[in-house]
Amino acid sequence: MAEILHRIGATTTPGTVYAALTTIDGLAGWWTVKTKDAGDDVIRFRFDAPHGEDGFDMKVLETVPAELVRWEVVDGPAEWIGTRIRFDLKQEDDFTVVLFKHEGWREPVEFMYHCSTKWATFLMSLKEFAETGSGHPAPDDVQISNWH
Amino acid sequence: MAEILHRIGATTTPGTVYAALTTIDGLAGWWTVKTKDAGDDVIRFRFDAPHGEDGFDMKVLETVPAELVRWEVVDGPAEWIGTRIRFDLKQEDDFTVVLFKHEGWREPVEFMYHCSTKWATFLMSLKEFAETGSGHPAPDDVQISNWH
Repeated sequence: MAEILHRIGATTTPGTVYAALTTIDGLAGWWTVKTKDAGDDVIRFRFDAPHGEDGFDMKVLETVPAELVRWEVVDGPAEWIGTRIRFDLKQEDDFTVVLFKHEGWREPVEFMYHCSTKWATFLMSLKEFAETGSGHPAPDDVQISNWH
Repeated sequence: MAEILHRIGATTTPGTVYAALTTIDGLAGWWTVKTKDAGDDVIRFRFDAPHGEDGFDMKVLETVPAELVRWEVVDGPAEWIGTRIRFDLKQEDDFTVVLFKHEGWREPVEFMYHCSTKWATFLMSLKEFAETGSGHPAPDDVQISNWH
């Protein structure tokens, strides 16, 4: 099993980062503006694609205020379904550190290389959003390659 | 064994990206301005640190023009020594795609989370350098956390 790991730190409180990970307005502020509560603890994330939309549905598995958020991917690209994502938060100096893990990839396919870099740029958007109230969610996200 | 994967695409030729990965001026243009040929196929990368400098020495294991660059870390932080880095290049549409792998990590320690995100921002600097001739090498690199 392969996994994607990242670490960022935002100069704000753990509570502020936690809100950015657990509210629709927060998630829409750094990942994709098309974020919706789909009921039954599922959050629906959508992105504009060449022929319509694509995206991910995340089941919220666990939340611990200001400390932890865990999701499982219940719909989306085949490579993502069944994978799990976690955000661990902790305070260090003036920073809230986020340890990010996207685990359970069956194979390190080229799409996983892409998703790793894309997660990094979205986590930098999370940092910016948590620090300033304004990030770069899709469709205003950073283009990293021909796969966007 | 754990690994860091990334994928970027630059709107330029494979030859231009290859030059950015195999010449001192190229490497100094996107990773760190303190890049030196240390002889015996070793390239020395240094970064300003709170008390002096730290960094990495890379042994060049293999180069295939416009296609592949492989390094082994021969000096640097304990977690990096003996790990290997590869850049595979290919042309797709108007892009040169870079598949990056940093493999051989013994454990997915917190420093690996940090290095994964840091590599992403440096690879975005490589993209920018390859496309425009100007990147964001250290000490002008993007700060991602309290670990810089």
